[in-house]
Amino acid sequence: MHHALEAGDRVRGTTSPNPPVGCAIVDDSGVLISTGGTSPAGGPHAEVNALSAAGDKARGATAIVTLEPCNHTGRTGPCSHVLLEAGITKVVYLTRDTNPNAVGGADYLADHGVEVDYHPVRVEALQPWLRTLSTGRPHVTVKFAASIDGFTAAADGTSQWITGKAAREHVHKDRLRRDAIIVGTGTALADDPSLTARHAEGIPAERQPRRVVVGKRAVREGNLTRLGFEQYSSPEEALKVLWDTGARDVLVEGGASLATSFIQRGLVDRVQAYLAPMLMGAGRGVLTQALAPTLSGLERMKTEKITQLGDDVLVEMVRCLPDL
Amino acid sequence: MHHALEAGDRVRGTTSPNPPVGCAIVDDSGVLISTGGTSPAGGPHAEVNALSAAGDKARGATAIVTLEPCNHTGRTGPCSHVLLEAGITKVVYLTRDTNPNAVGGADYLADHGVEVDYHPVRVEALQPWLRTLSTGRPHVTVKFAASIDGFTAAADGTSQWITGKAAREHVHKDRLRRDAIIVGTGTALADDPSLTARHAEGIPAERQPRRVVVGKRAVREGNLTRLGFEQYSSPEEALKVLWDTGARDVLVEGGASLATSFIQRGLVDRVQAYLAPMLMGAGRGVLTQALAPTLSGLERMKTEKITQLGDDVLVEMVRCLPDL
Ligand SMILES: NC(=O)c1ccc[n+]([C@@H]2O[C@H](COP(=O)([O-])OP(=O)(O)OC[C@H]3O[C@@H](n4cnc5c(N)ncnc54)[C@H](OP(=O)(O)O)[C@@H]3O)[C@@H](O)[C@H]2O)c1
Ligand SMILES: NC(=O)c1ccc[n+]([C@@H]2O[C@H](COP(=O)([O-])OP(=O)(O)OC[C@H]3O[C@@H](n4cnc5c(N)ncnc54)[C@H](OP(=O)(O)O)[C@@H]3O)[C@@H](O)[C@H]2O)c1
Repeated sequence: MHHALEAGDRVRGTTSPNPPVGCAIVDDSGVLISTGGTSPAGGPHAEVNALSAAGDKARGATAIVTLEPCNHTGRTGPCSHVLLEAGITKVVYLTRDTNPNAVGGADYLADHGVEVDYHPVRVEALQPWLRTLSTGRPHVTVKFAASIDGFTAAADGTSQWITGKAAREHVHKDRLRRDAIIVGTGTALADDPSLTARHAEGIPAERQPRRVVVGKRAVREGNLTRLGFEQYSSPEEALKVLWDTGARDVLVEGGASLATSFIQRGLVDRVQAYLAPMLMGAGRGVLTQALAPTLSGLERMKTEKITQLGDDVLVEMVRCLPDL
Repeated sequence: MHHALEAGDRVRGTTSPNPPVGCAIVDDSGVLISTGGTSPAGGPHAEVNALSAAGDKARGATAIVTLEPCNHTGRTGPCSHVLLEAGITKVVYLTRDTNPNAVGGADYLADHGVEVDYHPVRVEALQPWLRTLSTGRPHVTVKFAASIDGFTAAADGTSQWITGKAAREHVHKDRLRRDAIIVGTGTALADDPSLTARHAEGIPAERQPRRVVVGKRAVREGNLTRLGFEQYSSPEEALKVLWDTGARDVLVEGGASLATSFIQRGLVDRVQAYLAPMLMGAGRGVLTQALAPTLSGLERMKTEKITQLGDDVLVEMVRCLPDL
């Protein structure tokens, strides 16, 4: 199973609008034959890649797939049919596919004599995509770096660096997994950011997420104009265009004004707080406005993961959706 | 070793001005014979309690002590002598005693033919006391409960409850281990707090930390006047009197104004942040003033422990002292 999960993790950030699925083919005694992950849009799905790598050895073997095999013909054929034709005799899948277009793969296989086992596991890599099935917009993560008392810059505006090296490296790894990075014109004008995903040594990664700026002010000549970027006049417009052009998992990196807008409009699925062990006492806040006047009106999120990064702490929280 | 550590943890909060030491006596084959922890001030030290419980079995046995056995005659005799007389043939200690009055226990034992082994381990229960050896004032922890973006109350002042049940129970357990709880007159007047350590079911614990209020305003008739409290006019006066009357480990529970005073005066050793997975956007801050105008002037602490408490996160940070 962990081979299938790993294969899915490896392709995260490269598959949208398709989900980053992983597939492992194992023989009777559980020995790994091959793995495969979803190819970029238009290319083969994870199952097809794993089957190609397995060749004849797939006959009589078991396929473990992080998501229920699809049953529809899109840009590629239905994976359920391909698995059957390759002679797979057992399919284990870890997540149900509720996408109305694709649904029915497990039933199709079972109807054709394949042993089908639903083994429910929370597949990290699929969470953003799964959530888009019910929201109909890209999955949005708001990220911020702050002192433990909630300031993203000191009283005089200085903010480099609040968090340490390990936290900053984590941000770059995280960017790699996203389809787009979004900032407000305020940040674009103040920081001239590159919004690139860089490896630890400062080398930009091969594949880069889309760079998106929200707001009406013009972005000055600089890193963004040099590297290329898209600009939209509102959060809604940005998400609509991003969705229509295949983005499913985006990261809002600030500033405070844009993050507040996204949250107030109910457009946020997940919050990632990088907190430094430092008290500032005063400075710039994470957001710019009260989200509710009184405590009972404020929304409580679910803490999903806590990671120590050097001396900093990353707290990952998800907004509760009834269906998740 | 863990028996000695546990014996020390058990007596935390009951031993000041003495350190909460734990001792375990084990036989040749490592089987536990007895344990002991420091008795309240004036009573026997951990070693003496463990030896009493062991009786004759102590002869030829090994004593594991969380702190180097003392070598001086205070209200009790030197533990080094008692261990020797009881026939202990090996002593393992986990922390060096740098207290000039007590130092020399390990040397004394070694000089008298006992095998002495210093096995350095960070003993949690001893940290506050050890730190007082270099600061000469009680160990001070500042605690606060806030949203993940650093607000201790919503815009309208409501703050019950920001953190959940598990975090609040943790606070009560923590109070039990302290010699005193300190709040400002602002909190005393606004909240009429009891500052008692209660068990999960709401029942007050048998032993209670001292209740201390700092500020000049009079405290109104209420929980504090009913339960008894001490009042001092400044942080320095409070710490001086507390030290002179034996307190070594105190907790500052707020509010923001008093916590800021303690920090600005360099009187804080440790910060405990209980953070709820909730964004407020605006409200009351953790502190009331910038600790420095610019980022480079702010002090970075060391993150010592991160604990998930329900959906909340407890981040424990220590100020770096050159000697710790
Ligand atoms: N520590 C951190 O984690 C972090 C991260 C990022 C940024 N920052 C800092 O934050 C500062 C910038 O923050 P900021 O709050 O001033 O600016 P910002 O949030 O980056 O940008 C604000 C702009 O975004 C646009 N915008 C926001 N909400 C909108 C909405 N609902 N509809 C349409 N447009 C919307 C508006 O652009 P127009 O006015 O152009 O229409 C607005 O002026 C910089 O100093 C930067 O260094 C810190
Ligand atoms: N969420 C939480 O974790 C938490 C915890 C505790 C309290 N609170 C809230 O915080 C609010 C009260 O906070 P606050 O900041 O107004 O009051 P506070 O900090 O409790 O008390 C302020 C008072 O303490 C005294 N004081 C402070 N620094 C001093 C110094 N250096 N020397 C002498 N005296 C000093 C002064 O008393 P005098 O003016 O009398 O001289 C001052 O007015 C309450 O609403 C309470 O509910 C929240």
